Amino acid sequence: MRSKAVVLLSGGLDSAVTLYMARAGGYECYGITFDYGQRHKIEIGSARKIAAAAGIKLSVVRLEMPWKGSTLFSGSGKVPVKRSMRRISNGIPSTYVPARNTVFLSIAVSYAEAISADAVFIGAHSEDSSGYPDCRVEYLRAFDYTVGLGTERGIKGKLRIISPIISMKKKEIVKIGVSLGVPFDRTWSCYNGLKAPCRVCDSCILRAKGFKEAGVKDPLLERYG
Amino acid sequence: MRSKAVVLLSGGLDSAVTLYMARAGGYECYGITFDYGQRHKIEIGSARKIAAAAGIKLSVVRLEMPWKGSTLFSGSGKVPVKRSMRRISNGIPSTYVPARNTVFLSIAVSYAEAISADAVFIGAHSEDSSGYPDCRVEYLRAFDYTVGLGTERGIKGKLRIISPIISMKKKEIVKIGVSLGVPFDRTWSCYNGLKAPCRVCDSCILRAKGFKEAGVKDPLLERYG
Repeated sequence: MRSKAVVLLSGGLDSAVTLYMARAGGYECYGITFDYGQRHKIEIGSARKIAAAAGIKLSVVRLEMPWKGSTLFSGSGKVPVKRSMRRISNGIPSTYVPARNTVFLSIAVSYAEAISADAVFIGAHSEDSSGYPDCRVEYLRAFDYTVGLGTERGIKGKLRIISPIISMKKKEIVKIGVSLGVPFDRTWSCYNGLKAPCRVCDSCILRAKGFKEAGVKDPLLERYG
Repeated sequence: MRSKAVVLLSGGLDSAVTLYMARAGGYECYGITFDYGQRHKIEIGSARKIAAAAGIKLSVVRLEMPWKGSTLFSGSGKVPVKRSMRRISNGIPSTYVPARNTVFLSIAVSYAEAISADAVFIGAHSEDSSGYPDCRVEYLRAFDYTVGLGTERGIKGKLRIISPIISMKKKEIVKIGVSLGVPFDRTWSCYNGLKAPCRVCDSCILRAKGFKEAGVKDPLLERYG
């Protein structure tokens, strides 16, 4: 019997590559994504498309937290656009969702316990997230340690948190994704809820940079011409 | 300005005493409870009553995880009754909800970040939970460490996980509760979803033992005669 893995899918590029890496590593993958009142439901749709392309089950967890804390949460607040790369790495961005990775990882761990999975994969990486405390390797290592103490499978040494792209640059992630056949045209990165990628928000800029440096055309942008 | 604390309320005795301890410690308290598909909505009602008695705000977080893993989750499965105290402490009880404290704590931490709280209080304690890996002090210490790395307030040293009753016996918890005026008649411990406490499930038995050893009558049982 193959080992099972729960894979956090955001609908974005990083988590899609992470899924394909987990699959290539021999895991039977179970996707999980969140409907937590984010402004753009397009992310959930993208996660569904990626899961369908990979031929895996996707569980959508509904989470209603009656407080806000980020410009990504709801209609209020403006998503920062056209910020330079320099400013992205200064301090904690205003798009920070309070303890988001901790919440998502915890629920993924609950799922992993329920289906007796051996791993939870998360596509966190530090390059485009240097301002987010919960995208750092020290944090993920501490969370992994905590799971090893606080879960039934963890105390048996059977549940690990794996973040395979944590130290990669975007261009490397793109290259690996290409080699594994990741359906990039189904991934969504833009922070602004338009019908086409805005090409000016932090996330669009980093994505474009990654594809450019990898020497690959972004199939998503190709589609929008 | 007083320090804020988020307090996890389950509707039970332990978390109610924890709330009154946090309040007595000078914190401005914000309650949080979960509607996560548990079988008995009476717990949420009890949390509301306790919050009202303490004069604090209560946030109810709705969480739909489309998998099960515990007999406490839904109508399927039977809650174990009349188990001896000995059997309670052997291994992991079948009432284990996968990674529940990790999920609840993470969401409480998100709330704490959103309202700039300094602490999250959890009424975990090891006596009646020795089978639950996520009620142990090592686990809570690791979680606290993780929060210190993975949150905005944590990295500033401004967010702690506090479990004031972790090492107490039930009788001590009852005694402290009495001294702080905890409205025990509003708390609910029974695992079986009846109108009155069943008095035979693990939780009822431990509660009765605590009150007996503290030499105090349980106002909840008094009410049901």
